[in-house]
Formats: sequence, C-alpha cells, structure tokens
Amino acid sequence: MQQQHERVMAEKAIAIDQFIEKYFAQMNLPEGSAIQELKRSMHYSATNGGKRFRPVLSLLVADLLNSNPERVMPFAVAVEMIHTYSLIHDDLPCMDNDDLRRGSPTNHKVFGEDFALLAGDALLTEAFLLIAEGYSGQGALAVQLTRLLSEAAGIRGMVGGQAIDLRAGLKTFTNDELTHLHSLKTGALIRVAVEGAALIAEAQPNEVLALRNFGSGLGLAFQIADDILDHGEKDQDVRSFTGILGMEDTKSLLREISQKALQELHLVSKEAPMLEHLISYNQSRQV
Amino acid sequence: MQQQHERVMAEKAIAIDQFIEKYFAQMNLPEGSAIQELKRSMHYSATNGGKRFRPVLSLLVADLLNSNPERVMPFAVAVEMIHTYSLIHDDLPCMDNDDLRRGSPTNHKVFGEDFALLAGDALLTEAFLLIAEGYSGQGALAVQLTRLLSEAAGIRGMVGGQAIDLRAGLKTFTNDELTHLHSLKTGALIRVAVEGAALIAEAQPNEVLALRNFGSGLGLAFQIADDILDHGEKDQDVRSFTGILGMEDTKSLLREISQKALQELHLVSKEAPMLEHLISYNQSRQV
Repeated sequence: MQQQHERVMAEKAIAIDQFIEKYFAQMNLPEGSAIQELKRSMHYSATNGGKRFRPVLSLLVADLLNSNPERVMPFAVAVEMIHTYSLIHDDLPCMDNDDLRRGSPTNHKVFGEDFALLAGDALLTEAFLLIAEGYSGQGALAVQLTRLLSEAAGIRGMVGGQAIDLRAGLKTFTNDELTHLHSLKTGALIRVAVEGAALIAEAQPNEVLALRNFGSGLGLAFQIADDILDHGEKDQDVRSFTGILGMEDTKSLLREISQKALQELHLVSKEAPMLEHLISYNQSRQV
Repeated sequence: MQQQHERVMAEKAIAIDQFIEKYFAQMNLPEGSAIQELKRSMHYSATNGGKRFRPVLSLLVADLLNSNPERVMPFAVAVEMIHTYSLIHDDLPCMDNDDLRRGSPTNHKVFGEDFALLAGDALLTEAFLLIAEGYSGQGALAVQLTRLLSEAAGIRGMVGGQAIDLRAGLKTFTNDELTHLHSLKTGALIRVAVEGAALIAEAQPNEVLALRNFGSGLGLAFQIADDILDHGEKDQDVRSFTGILGMEDTKSLLREISQKALQELHLVSKEAPMLEHLISYNQSRQV
C-alpha cells in the first residue's frame, strides 16, 4: 500500500513537472537575449528537483472531490511558482546566503544576484498571470483564488512569517508563538494549496472550511515532524517544538494535530486514502 | 491655464496619497512586532513623496470617460504599489546600490536589505490583493486587470526591461532597441495605468485601444524629454536618444511621438484638456 501511495504521488509530481515545462516552452516573450536569460533563471529554479508537495496536494484534493485535475493545474502551479520565488529570495546573500539548494548551486550563484532577484519577482508576478489566464472564464473563482493566494503569499502570510523569523534573533518562543510563525511562513501556502483546490472543485462552503483546516493541520504536522527528525542537530533551538516542549510532548502534539487534521478530512469524506496517507506517512517518517 | 492644470494634478495626487494612507491604516495584519516593522517598511516607500504620475493618469482617464474616480482607485493604487516595489528592489546593493531616493535614505538604508527585499515582495503581492478586493463584484473585469498588470509588471514588461538594461553593458543601442527597452522598463506600467482605467470605465474596445496607444506614446515621450533634459550630463550615453540620434533628431522624434499620441487621444475625445496638457507640458518642460 505504501508503495502504491508513493507511486500516485510521483505520478502527480510528474504531471506538475510536465505542465511547468510546457508552460515555459510556450511562453510568448518580448525580444532580447537578456529576457531569454531571465527566463532560464526562472526555469532553473522552477525545475530544480522539488518534490512538488503543494501542487500535488492540490491535485489530491481535486481527486478527493471528483474534480478534473486539469482544472486545478494552473492554480497548483501558481502556488508552486510562489514557493519557488520565495526560495530564490531566501537564498540571497542578504537573507540566508545559501550556496546550495537541493544539491545544486542556488539561483544567484548561477545567474548573479541581480537576475536572481528579478527571477523571483517575475515568478511571483507570473503566478497571478497563471490564475488570470487559467480561470478567465470564471471571474468570481479567479477573484477568490487571487485573493487567497495574495493573502497567503504576502505580509498576511508567507512574507509576514519570514519577517518574524528574521527578527526573532535568539528569543525563546512559546508554543503558540512558534505555531503562529509556522502557520504564516510555511503553513499559509500549504493551506491555500488545499483551499484553492476545494474552491475550484466547487466544494460546499462547509467542505472548503474543513479542507482549509485539514491543510493548516497538515502543514503544522509536517513542521513538527521536521523538528522531531532534526532533534539531535538543534535540540537547543529556541524555535523548534522539541527545543520548547521536549521530545515526548512534541510527539504528543504531533499525534494530536494529526488526529485533528484527519477529523477535518473525514468531515468531507470517510474515504480519503491518499490524504490520510500523507498524515500517517508524516507521523512515521524517519528521514 | 497651466496653473489650473497643475492644481488638478496636485489634487489627484493628494487623493491617491489619502487612499494609500487609509489603506495602510486599515490593514488587518497578523500579530507580531516584525510584521508591524515590515508594514512600516512598505509604508515608508509607498509614501516617499512620489508625484503619483501613474495613478494620477488613471484618474485623468476616468474623468475623460465620465467614470467615477472611486472605481479606478484600487487599480490605480495597485499600479503605484508595483512602481514602488520596483524602486525598492532597484535601489538594493545587488542592483543600482543607491543610498538616496527623492532625497531620503533608500528603503534598505533604513530597514536593512532583508526587510527591503521583503517589503518589495509584499507590495508586489499586495497589488494583486487590491485588484481582487477592489473589483470582487466584477469578476471578468478583475481577471482583465490582473492579466494586464501581471503582463506589464513581469518578464513581459517592466522586469523584462530591467533585465535588458542590466545586461546591456556598453553596447550601443539602435533607436528601435532603445524604444523597445523603454516600452518595457517604464512604458508598460504607464500604458497599463491608462488601459486599465479605460477598461474600468467600460470604454468601447476601439477607445481602449486608442487610449492604450496614447499611454504608450506618453510614456515614450516622457523618456525622450528626459534624455533631452539630461543631454549635457550624458551625451555620450549609448542608451539615450540624444546620444544615438543627436539633439535635433531627438527633438523631431519628440514632436512626432507627441503628435501621434494626441491623434490617438482625439480618437476618443476632441475635448481632453488635461491629457493634452500632459503631452504639451512634457514637450515644453525645462526641468
């Protein structure tokens, strides 16, 4: 069963990869070798071997709600483009100053800081073009998706979380503060991948809400599991759940959050093997 | 007459300033002192004494078409937020490395490079939220505005133009290449300020097209006039119209482009004193 789940996830990641490759291949751009270079910089990071967690999640929600996966694809890829831009900007010298990302040189190491900055700006902008073009025939839906994504990506979400992280210094966080940080920095984009897919599938409002809560729980559960796995390396970390709660209480918290996420999921469907799998896989993962 | 025109422009700029102040004052943000600091960083650059050329242009188009200026305001401010983000990122050390902007310290000099980067990212994202919220009841219009703005701001427009500029080095441009560069780098956002306002005013397709062409011409005419004014300082510049064409031919080009822009404007209305004034003011300006 485990293997079958993994195979489904891998197939969906490949579908995302293919959509992204086709999107770049068909991009209609103004003339100029510098514009082609900027496109290569965007493409480099958009195809840098990520596991496509967020857009795959959108596709799994489409499956759950018996919705055509083609319909969710532009939104799913818009979320991935925003994730990609955030990694490019995060890696810049004025932020984390990382030379490697997933084993490859970071964008600015290959294209220079100026083009890395512009590639991030362009990918963020492109995400909203994807929504405008992908849902042009459904204006009300496009508006909802644009609002959700801009709230999740900007100062009310991911960028706000990055700001908190940058200014936290050595301050010891409480459990609530740490949950708040993660709900913005990584949680908002994961949650919106689920919520947007539910809207595209024309789910009922109570289903959208339950799936939104499931998405929040899933994002937090992944962060808690990361902290458990990294425990040996950073158990003094003032911004890890294990550093704050200790190992045993963190494991209890993971069970509790996972259980709540499953309850939300089961409000929508008692039969959701793939999304259930994500929760149980996360609870048991060893790497 | 000149003075009256200037007064109208100044009143509209004040209306833009007030909308922006109110928008920031009413922003509903997550908790965290770092998020408040990020908001201050966004606000600092969004209220840094710009003349509001682009959003004022949108308001003038609304007046021309007898459209309620309140309706164009969210879009006009979205365009201004994108202009503001581009200045913040342009000033960063990895780009132009400027310490001053309009006589004040640049964003990164006040808030640090990391928060300047994030403030730019957040303003760009906020622009699309403004459209989603400002036109939520008119889905088809919101989709059109989102598409126009993302095309004008991203790799197909402003960011594409920045890429060309960064990689141009000491290459001597032809007149066509220089026109292409400016049509992307600064022209796209000026054009979209006009075109978007025409769409919001429910102009006919032929009027939208004529105003779009007017916007393109106006943007180019301002760039040409800038080159004429800066001539003494950079007459060797391989990327100025005067450097390429010489002073006399550049002045002829300015007359020609201004004349064409007025023709496009007069396709929409024979009575357009404020927008005519922008063209004639630009032709005659001495500073």
